[in-house]
Amino acid sequence: MKPTYVIGLDYGTNSVRAAVVSCADGRSVGTHVCDYPSGERGVILDAGDPHLARQNPADYVEGLRVATAGALAEAEGGDSSRRSGSAESGSGSTEDAPFSRDQVIAIGVDTTGSTPIPVDARCRPLAFDPKWLANPAAHAWLWKDHTAAEEAATITEIAQEHAPEYLAPIGGTYSSEWFWSKVWHCLNVAPDVFDAAATWVELADFVPAVLAGVTDPRTIFRCVCAAGHKAMYSREWGGLPSEEFLARLDPRLAALRGRLYDEAHPPHLPAGRLSPEWADQLGLRAGIPVAMGGFDAHYGAVGAGVAPGTLVKIIGTSTCDITVAPTSEPIGNVPGICGIVDGSVMTGYYGIEAGQSAVGDLLHWWVDSVCDGDDTLHGRLSDEAARLRPGASGLLALDWNNGNRTVLVDPRLTGLILGQTLHTNRAEVYRALIESTAFGARVIVERLAKCGVPIDRIVCCGGIAAKNDLFMQIYADVLGRPMLLAGSSQTPALGAAISAAVAAGDGAGGYSTFEEAQARMTTLRDERFNPDPRAQAVYDELFPMYRELHDSFGGVPGAEADFPSLMKRLLALRDRTGKP
Amino acid sequence: MKPTYVIGLDYGTNSVRAAVVSCADGRSVGTHVCDYPSGERGVILDAGDPHLARQNPADYVEGLRVATAGALAEAEGGDSSRRSGSAESGSGSTEDAPFSRDQVIAIGVDTTGSTPIPVDARCRPLAFDPKWLANPAAHAWLWKDHTAAEEAATITEIAQEHAPEYLAPIGGTYSSEWFWSKVWHCLNVAPDVFDAAATWVELADFVPAVLAGVTDPRTIFRCVCAAGHKAMYSREWGGLPSEEFLARLDPRLAALRGRLYDEAHPPHLPAGRLSPEWADQLGLRAGIPVAMGGFDAHYGAVGAGVAPGTLVKIIGTSTCDITVAPTSEPIGNVPGICGIVDGSVMTGYYGIEAGQSAVGDLLHWWVDSVCDGDDTLHGRLSDEAARLRPGASGLLALDWNNGNRTVLVDPRLTGLILGQTLHTNRAEVYRALIESTAFGARVIVERLAKCGVPIDRIVCCGGIAAKNDLFMQIYADVLGRPMLLAGSSQTPALGAAISAAVAAGDGAGGYSTFEEAQARMTTLRDERFNPDPRAQAVYDELFPMYRELHDSFGGVPGAEADFPSLMKRLLALRDRTGKP
Repeated sequence: MKPTYVIGLDYGTNSVRAAVVSCADGRSVGTHVCDYPSGERGVILDAGDPHLARQNPADYVEGLRVATAGALAEAEGGDSSRRSGSAESGSGSTEDAPFSRDQVIAIGVDTTGSTPIPVDARCRPLAFDPKWLANPAAHAWLWKDHTAAEEAATITEIAQEHAPEYLAPIGGTYSSEWFWSKVWHCLNVAPDVFDAAATWVELADFVPAVLAGVTDPRTIFRCVCAAGHKAMYSREWGGLPSEEFLARLDPRLAALRGRLYDEAHPPHLPAGRLSPEWADQLGLRAGIPVAMGGFDAHYGAVGAGVAPGTLVKIIGTSTCDITVAPTSEPIGNVPGICGIVDGSVMTGYYGIEAGQSAVGDLLHWWVDSVCDGDDTLHGRLSDEAARLRPGASGLLALDWNNGNRTVLVDPRLTGLILGQTLHTNRAEVYRALIESTAFGARVIVERLAKCGVPIDRIVCCGGIAAKNDLFMQIYADVLGRPMLLAGSSQTPALGAAISAAVAAGDGAGGYSTFEEAQARMTTLRDERFNPDPRAQAVYDELFPMYRELHDSFGGVPGAEADFPSLMKRLLALRDRTGKP
Repeated sequence: MKPTYVIGLDYGTNSVRAAVVSCADGRSVGTHVCDYPSGERGVILDAGDPHLARQNPADYVEGLRVATAGALAEAEGGDSSRRSGSAESGSGSTEDAPFSRDQVIAIGVDTTGSTPIPVDARCRPLAFDPKWLANPAAHAWLWKDHTAAEEAATITEIAQEHAPEYLAPIGGTYSSEWFWSKVWHCLNVAPDVFDAAATWVELADFVPAVLAGVTDPRTIFRCVCAAGHKAMYSREWGGLPSEEFLARLDPRLAALRGRLYDEAHPPHLPAGRLSPEWADQLGLRAGIPVAMGGFDAHYGAVGAGVAPGTLVKIIGTSTCDITVAPTSEPIGNVPGICGIVDGSVMTGYYGIEAGQSAVGDLLHWWVDSVCDGDDTLHGRLSDEAARLRPGASGLLALDWNNGNRTVLVDPRLTGLILGQTLHTNRAEVYRALIESTAFGARVIVERLAKCGVPIDRIVCCGGIAAKNDLFMQIYADVLGRPMLLAGSSQTPALGAAISAAVAAGDGAGGYSTFEEAQARMTTLRDERFNPDPRAQAVYDELFPMYRELHDSFGGVPGAEADFPSLMKRLLALRDRTGKP
């Protein structure tokens, strides 16, 4: 049988990447990245509202075309260059036979999320219509749009009172980044857009629907990943939140429910078949499976080899933590963990998601906003910080400059730096900030273990994991276990490709399960970071102090209204005094 | 009667300033500054020990000669230039008659302290002897030398157990900056120097002794200012600490006691008469009074118009607070206030001293060490910070990067910054740091009031008071009262000159009391900073939050050993891990 390939499409915040991946060993034989042309690096901003972040859905379709075509061309070209004897090219098929497009057996997609898009009755984004083009509410509501903070707070409040079961699997707090907050905010600020939308589609479901040529909103396959983590979907209570619940928010949201979906689907199923139009355009075979979409972190975890007991940390500007637990053994709720959703990562497992809101961003804040340094300063501060002994600076920080996602689930929390003297330098603070994120990571691992999800292996991926040795060593020392590194530098695209291989099935040259596909298609780097016992001992003393700051400044969950922490009282004052 | 003049000599950390001052109105008619030639800007440092700070006593004598001669020459020259019609010169006598040196009726001296100097049997500093020149222990132990931290802690401990009365008037904690800590540390690390010293003399007593030509250590007049604030001297217990007490520290310290002094003197008395040698050298009349020396802050307060109910704040790299209370009404102890000493500022009053260890230094730390900026950055950050509304940054800081002098009396405490987000900028932190020092200032004023020393007027002087409007406005808003500014930009030299005018007496063209001299010789600037009610209201809300941080991180006085605050436990870890 001829070698088979799958395409993984990874929709990030600023660009989309396509990778043509060998089913045999997971190697990429062709990749191409297309930057979104609209807005500021692909993001539509509003000078008057720092919380607004939207994207032009046209960029998604254009990016799909350009990135996929580019990756396929590289796979073909790379192959020919290999044949002509070049050793430099990393692309090219893994077999001697040349790559050809008819060997592509399926396409998989991962995206940011929750990134809902209002679409019309023919599944076209409203923003395709010139009438709506200038209205940001008619575009895609990017994951990091925070305009819906008030709606999120109200949803949490009403759910706490009337449907606490909705909150249990998502950490107890509904986020302003999530589906219902955004759709409701649209209703509140742009009711004309809300009224014009036939339905709303997550980007993770939109791209597969585009590839499959879906034109009837009722036939869009929705992935359980987006539905369960962001839209309070569960089969337990019959799908999306009840009409009765939604009516408590707004009767028009209750009316929307019927135009959404009754069932969401696990990731092993195809979301559709490649349409003749797209097959034509890309030179692929019509009718090959298009896999269920999923979020970048979730499919990234798949590409990094997530498994029961294995935590995948995707460390970049923020950190996303993903692990899985078999659905055969029901687990309880894990307070403060963003989401526990059956089938959101791999079929047959609970997908468990946690995260930290600012990691690389915390270091960027220090270097860019405080030190006013250029990119080279990261390297210099890292080098200097690497020569410091753990504990010796006397500094301790809280990593909450962008709030706390896990386990406090409070986006309004703020940062803290403690222990500075007149001799404290910027490299010491830089190290303390890295350490603070490592302590935050340890809080998450300990919370998981305490709630029946023990972690015995940590695999890291993402920009920081790949590039910053000091960072990884500190994590090993603070967490007291080796930090392993994913073999692929593009785990989300690889994970999306794996989902495609599973959607195709073993009969078509793919795999029948995610586990089998992972066994062949994922690897670890040889390099790993082992804990240094001396450093680990110091961090074992520092960590309880971090916990003490964490608990006293984070506030008592549920009691915040009556006993707000100092940090919260300070914020309340800021909110009042910040207004003219 | 011809107009009379006095000379005020102000020994700072880096230089000595001489001012020729009119007794009639306090105006300076000639000034000259002499930078100390030795060490780094006058300070002898040790690359291996950041706590060491010494000065070459030869610099003091050389500076005395150069600065005084320069000031006198300017007074003469300035006078002639005035007569020739120049309006630009700020110097020149206040009368039409030309200044002449025989109109100088006395000399006064203020210095840093505690700055003890080991001297030989002829009152010459040991460091004058080539044998000792290379040994830093034989030089002057500058006020900010912190090598004696262990000795200070032990003195505090032993006094707490055996002689708590010694600690009561000095805030409850003996400092590493003070006389006995330093002398004892010398004994421990350089016993040869200790053995060679006939006695130890505070710089504030040394300079008057030099001017008076004293060659017998037993005849040095010691000021109550240095003795009471730094050497645990009080007439209540018969002078210096008892031999029995000192023997608990080290028997050799007990033996030294007899070579120190039995009595210290209030500031209205002359310390001696100008020696013929110095009179010759400076062209002054031999035999004019040399006033009792005093510390720069204390005489600075005199020059700023200190009085009962008036607090003088000398705001520079650190802040020193001085007020007075009549000895006719005994006051209790004020916990945490560095010193309450009868006659240390003006005869007939308790001198009350408090302070903050880092004020300007805190801003310098931010600008120099963190922002890596040049001097112009202070101005730019100030401008930007001035446009921010109180409370609107959401930041709150503790001003303890150099410990807390009042009211916690703990040099090991460290700083804290709370409330930062990814959008927090350096100007917001700059303002929060200023605010933190203002909150610290308010803690001091409230402690004074609570202990029977109400403050109804605040007069500021020092480099920051003169130059930084934003700083002064924030202080007015936080303290909720006007910030007045001393008329003189050189209040310590003016205060020393006033002490000279009092030492000369009204019969000689001076004054019979400090109050009379102050009434004629001190002024306020017309400019003042009044509280803005809106800002004040916000700071009234922020201050209790500062207090909360202050109390929880500062630790419970007296209970620190059993219940160390998080900050202290972090420091203990730093101390252990900082060592190789």
